[in-house]
Amino acid sequence: MNSDLNQGREGLVVGLDAGGTRTRAVLADLADGRPLGDGTSGPGNALTVPGPELVDHLAEALARAVPEGARGRVTAVAGGFAGAGHQAQGADEPGRVRARTALSAALARLGIAATTVGVHSDIETTFATARGNPADGLVLVAGTGAVAARIAARVPAATSGGDGWLLGDDGSGFWIGRSAVRSALRAADGRGAPTVLARAVGRELGLPPGVLPPESYGVADGVAWSAVLRTAYRAHLLPAVMDRPPVRLADHAPLVVRAAEEKDGVAGEILREAVGSLVETVSALAPRPGEPLVVTGGLLAPHGPLLTPLTDRLAHLALEVTPVSDGSPGAVALARLAHGTGR
Amino acid sequence: MNSDLNQGREGLVVGLDAGGTRTRAVLADLADGRPLGDGTSGPGNALTVPGPELVDHLAEALARAVPEGARGRVTAVAGGFAGAGHQAQGADEPGRVRARTALSAALARLGIAATTVGVHSDIETTFATARGNPADGLVLVAGTGAVAARIAARVPAATSGGDGWLLGDDGSGFWIGRSAVRSALRAADGRGAPTVLARAVGRELGLPPGVLPPESYGVADGVAWSAVLRTAYRAHLLPAVMDRPPVRLADHAPLVVRAAEEKDGVAGEILREAVGSLVETVSALAPRPGEPLVVTGGLLAPHGPLLTPLTDRLAHLALEVTPVSDGSPGAVALARLAHGTGR
Repeated sequence: MNSDLNQGREGLVVGLDAGGTRTRAVLADLADGRPLGDGTSGPGNALTVPGPELVDHLAEALARAVPEGARGRVTAVAGGFAGAGHQAQGADEPGRVRARTALSAALARLGIAATTVGVHSDIETTFATARGNPADGLVLVAGTGAVAARIAARVPAATSGGDGWLLGDDGSGFWIGRSAVRSALRAADGRGAPTVLARAVGRELGLPPGVLPPESYGVADGVAWSAVLRTAYRAHLLPAVMDRPPVRLADHAPLVVRAAEEKDGVAGEILREAVGSLVETVSALAPRPGEPLVVTGGLLAPHGPLLTPLTDRLAHLALEVTPVSDGSPGAVALARLAHGTGR
Repeated sequence: MNSDLNQGREGLVVGLDAGGTRTRAVLADLADGRPLGDGTSGPGNALTVPGPELVDHLAEALARAVPEGARGRVTAVAGGFAGAGHQAQGADEPGRVRARTALSAALARLGIAATTVGVHSDIETTFATARGNPADGLVLVAGTGAVAARIAARVPAATSGGDGWLLGDDGSGFWIGRSAVRSALRAADGRGAPTVLARAVGRELGLPPGVLPPESYGVADGVAWSAVLRTAYRAHLLPAVMDRPPVRLADHAPLVVRAAEEKDGVAGEILREAVGSLVETVSALAPRPGEPLVVTGGLLAPHGPLLTPLTDRLAHLALEVTPVSDGSPGAVALARLAHGTGR
């Protein structure tokens, strides 16, 4: 524990990123935004995580980020919540109400009596991570799902994509993972080209080794895959997928990235098509040359597999692209802004 | 009721088509295959309809097709079941076992003691409707789902497609209906072109009239659709779709057919892509010039909306294409064959 922090007198702020898979809290100095502590816990989606559990996860992340001795000095808190609507949708937007109620309860439990507590959508906090803290620009999220938003005066003014796995999210992790399984099935019945994805997907789904294609299947000069095994493969693959929630198809996205690195043509084409869809999603918001674009999610975070191909495809727009891992630094920025600092 | 039938002495056969939405029984003359009676009832999928209900539906269809006085003269029964595997998969294939058990119970209930009772997959009975009763050829089914099969010696030797709504069924009614909703969402956020499908889909999903696009939206020189309404439309459309089982997306397929007839470019492109997928599905089975292709399902039955474009696209193969509404005539043919007649 930071002894400076416990003995200090300066004001502190907390930024929270409450996402579908984890909640992260960051403690920072009010005056200069310098990070002083960090804590993570379980899922924080304001709509899908049950209320009491949401309070627990927020309180856990906060307790880990803010030492007991420092809790009295937190003057502003801001949280970005997956599942929370934005400010323009009104204070009674269901996700915002749930997020605000849970955050108040978590703060009370820890004895944090901040003077300003801000609840935001995760898109707002993600955008707030942009360098120089601009009020207008674009956000593109490509994780399990895919959505883009135009931000005006710090709130989303329009969105593109984000239609969920059944209807859209083209170019997302779900879409890439489903494409991997589709390519495997198409190779198996002869509609599609041989690909190493057939073996990789079958293994990941726990198919009996006896029905998998040979190890060199899909590789140049690789061994053929017998018709009998192809039929058995399909018969095992379909129920293995259908027995799990559809969104689990996103689990196979990393296989596609690896196969593309190993020059598998089918995998490479899936990723090219994914990047094309993401470009289309952000292009529907009519990007203006030079404006900021914050990108995040597993595919576009720093070192994300689609970050470089995406920025290459958008190069002609000269956007100021900032990849971020999560929105907690943006939440810190919004907390400082709400307290009248941070500009 | 046919009095000839009640007073006759000739042998009779029954063919059954037990599909996902209805069960149909056809009574026919053993000697010449002439249809003498017909009855329908509820769903007959051997895997998804609970056992007692399956027996009820089979018995109802049989009772309607076969007058009481004629039941003692039925010498052969054959049924084609959705959800039943084919003969080559063995007598203990789960769907076949369920179908056989239910059919025996239904026949016993009605006092029909046929000497031969055959259980088949619906693909087998569909193919058996082909003119001249060939043993080898192709079947293409495009209804809610889409699958093709190569038939050798009257049983499926290979299949293509049929991967279900989550992973495939490209070109099916589900795929077309989902494409309609996707096109509406893409028009609404600016990723896609204006289309009359936006209004049609919104109406079919029961959206408030106030959020629908103007009536002339998507028509040449049509009125624009305001950004505010587009956002409201998307906010209403997504939950309306997600609140229903995914397969209900197939309900919107007829809208696409109507819109394409009215020269909507987006709808026309959806149908062209659907036909392309169906051609690809059957092409994976390496069709040989002149061989029989039986097509069925809502999209390819006689007068089905994709029948003509599909046959046009396959014209170079000179296949003998037979569109059929259901497999019950094929089941009659198989019943007569099993009794040593019908060649």
